[in-house]
Amino acid sequence: MTELKFDTTCIGNAIVDVIGQTDDAFLKSENLTKNAMALIDMDRAEDLYGKMTTAIEMSGGSAGNTAAGIASLGGKCAYVGKVRDDQLGDIFTHDIRAIGVTFETVKSTSGPATARSLILVTPDAHRTMNTYLGACIELGPDDIDPDMIAASKVTYMEGYLWDPQSGKDAFRKAAKIAHEARREVSLTLSDSFCVDRYREEFREFIDGGVDILFANEDEVKSLYETDDFDAALEAVKGHVKIACLTRSEKGSVIVTATESHKIDAIPGVNVVDTTGAGDLFASGFLYGYTNGYSLADSGRLGAIAAAEVISHYGARPIANLKELAATQLPQVKA
Amino acid sequence: MTELKFDTTCIGNAIVDVIGQTDDAFLKSENLTKNAMALIDMDRAEDLYGKMTTAIEMSGGSAGNTAAGIASLGGKCAYVGKVRDDQLGDIFTHDIRAIGVTFETVKSTSGPATARSLILVTPDAHRTMNTYLGACIELGPDDIDPDMIAASKVTYMEGYLWDPQSGKDAFRKAAKIAHEARREVSLTLSDSFCVDRYREEFREFIDGGVDILFANEDEVKSLYETDDFDAALEAVKGHVKIACLTRSEKGSVIVTATESHKIDAIPGVNVVDTTGAGDLFASGFLYGYTNGYSLADSGRLGAIAAAEVISHYGARPIANLKELAATQLPQVKA
Repeated sequence: MTELKFDTTCIGNAIVDVIGQTDDAFLKSENLTKNAMALIDMDRAEDLYGKMTTAIEMSGGSAGNTAAGIASLGGKCAYVGKVRDDQLGDIFTHDIRAIGVTFETVKSTSGPATARSLILVTPDAHRTMNTYLGACIELGPDDIDPDMIAASKVTYMEGYLWDPQSGKDAFRKAAKIAHEARREVSLTLSDSFCVDRYREEFREFIDGGVDILFANEDEVKSLYETDDFDAALEAVKGHVKIACLTRSEKGSVIVTATESHKIDAIPGVNVVDTTGAGDLFASGFLYGYTNGYSLADSGRLGAIAAAEVISHYGARPIANLKELAATQLPQVKA
Repeated sequence: MTELKFDTTCIGNAIVDVIGQTDDAFLKSENLTKNAMALIDMDRAEDLYGKMTTAIEMSGGSAGNTAAGIASLGGKCAYVGKVRDDQLGDIFTHDIRAIGVTFETVKSTSGPATARSLILVTPDAHRTMNTYLGACIELGPDDIDPDMIAASKVTYMEGYLWDPQSGKDAFRKAAKIAHEARREVSLTLSDSFCVDRYREEFREFIDGGVDILFANEDEVKSLYETDDFDAALEAVKGHVKIACLTRSEKGSVIVTATESHKIDAIPGVNVVDTTGAGDLFASGFLYGYTNGYSLADSGRLGAIAAAEVISHYGARPIANLKELAATQLPQVKA
C-alpha cells in the first residue's frame, strides 16, 4: 500500500459563505425553502444579495468545513475543490491552508468567479442556503490526484458535488482509486433535496462501495423513502460499513451491521447559527475514526465539534477544537 | 440654505476588514505595535495575511463604521469613500447600502484593488490593524459632491484620510463647502500615531473650523503633547465647539466652552473585539446631536453603540441599534 500521508482527503464545492440575518417573512416573500440549499444562477445571486442585510464573509463549503474541523482537531487532512483566481478564491485558499489543510487544486483562470453561498440565518438559528456554484463547475477528474487519494485513510465527499456533472465524474474517479488502494470511501448526503435529485444514483453509488455514510434524519429518510427514522436506520445497515445519522438536538446514532451507539448532543449550547453542524460532526467522527478512537468516542468528538460551530455565525470552528475536545473527552490530549 | 437631506455625511477610507485571532507573541515577532493602525504595502499585506489564521471578512473603515451605526440608529446618512470594481468593492458597497446609507462614490476601474485591513485580535480583545490602502488613494476632491455636503447637518471625516494626499485635498474641499453652507464639520483623530504624523496640520485644520472633535485619550494627549488627560481636556476647549473624548472603560467626556458631561461606559459588557469602539461612539453621538438630543444623551447613545460593537467580532453593529437604544434610553422610540 502507498504510504499514509492523510487521515482524510475531503472533496467538495469550494465556497465562500456570505452570512446575513433575516426573518421568516423574508424567506416566504422570496419563495425560499427554509433549511434547504438551493442552487441559484448569477442573476439571482445578485438579486438576492441586493436584498440581504449587511453580511459577514467566511470560507465555507461543506467538505471544506469538514476538512477545517479535522485540522483543528489535529488531524492530517487534504482538500480538493475549485476556486477561481479572484479575491474570494484567495480568501478561500488562505483560510483552508491557514488551519493546516493541504490544498493544491489548480485555480481556474477564466470562466465563472469563485462560488458563494448566500446564507440567511433566521432568529431560530436555522440557515437557508442559496448557492451560486461559479468556478466549482470546473472541478473534474483531472483534479483528482491518485497519489493523494491512495495516501489517505478515508476519502470523504459531499453529495452536493453531484450537482455539477464533472464533479460527479471526479467523485467516481476518487472512489475507484481509494478502493483500489484498499482505502475507505465516505459520503455525506448533504441535503434532503439533493437526495431527491439523485436518489437512485446515490443508492447505486453507496452500494458500489461507500464505507462510511453521513446523513441527517431527513436525508436518510429521503434516501430510503420512508417517514420513519427507525425504518431508515434499519434500511441503511446492510448498505454501508458505518452509518452516522445525525438528529440535531436529539443527538446522533452510529450504526454498523452489529453495533449501534446512541450519542447525546452536547447540552446547554447557545445556538446562534446551525450552518456547518453536520459538516463538523463529520470532522469529529472522521478524526476519531482515523486516529484509533472507538465508534462511540468518534461520535462524541463529532458532537463536540458540531456544538462549537453552532454557537457562533459561520460554518468553520473558531475555537481550537483539539483544546476544546480535551476538556470534554479524557482520551484527547491537547 | 440648501434643503437638509442628511443628518451626517461621513468621509473616509473604504476598507474591508480581515479579522483573525492572534496572540501577543505573534505581534512581537512581526514587530507590530499593539492597538495601532499601521499602513502596509501589498507585499507586506500578502506576507502578513499568509501568516494569519482563518479569518472573517466584514466591511469596515472608520467613517464607514460610523455611517453604518448612524443608519442603524435610524439616522439619515451618506458616505463617501473609494473602492475598486472588484469583489471586495462589491462587498463594501453592498453592506453600506444594505444598512440604509447613501453611497454613490464612483468606483475606480483601474489601479489598486479595494483596500483591506488585516486586523489581529488578541485574547484581551485589543485589535492591531494593518491597512493596505489600495483604491483609497484614488479618492480626491472630485469625489466630493457639493450638494451632498451642503445638504448634511454635519460632515464627518476620519483623520486616517489624511494619509493619502488626494484624501487630504478632498477633506479640505468638503470642510470649505460645509462651512460656506453654514453646516458643521466634525473630525475624528483616528489614531495617536496618525496624530504624530500630522500634528501641526491637524491643529491648523481644527483651528480653521472643526466644530465637533472626536478623540480618545491617547490621541488628544498626542495632539496637545501632554501626558495629562485633564491638561489635554483644558487645551482642546478653546479650539472646537464640542470635544468628545473617549476613555475606554472609563467612559467619555463631552466638553464645550461652558459645559462638561462625564458619561459612564456601559457596564457588564463581555468585550470580544474592541475594533470600532470609537467609530460607534461617534455614531451614537452624531445621531443624537443631529436629532435634537442633549449633549449628555448624545454621549449616552455613543456609549450604547460602542458597547454593542465591542461585544462581537467586527467593527459594524450586528444588533439593530435603534431597538437596543430604546431599551436603555427612554427618549429613544424603537
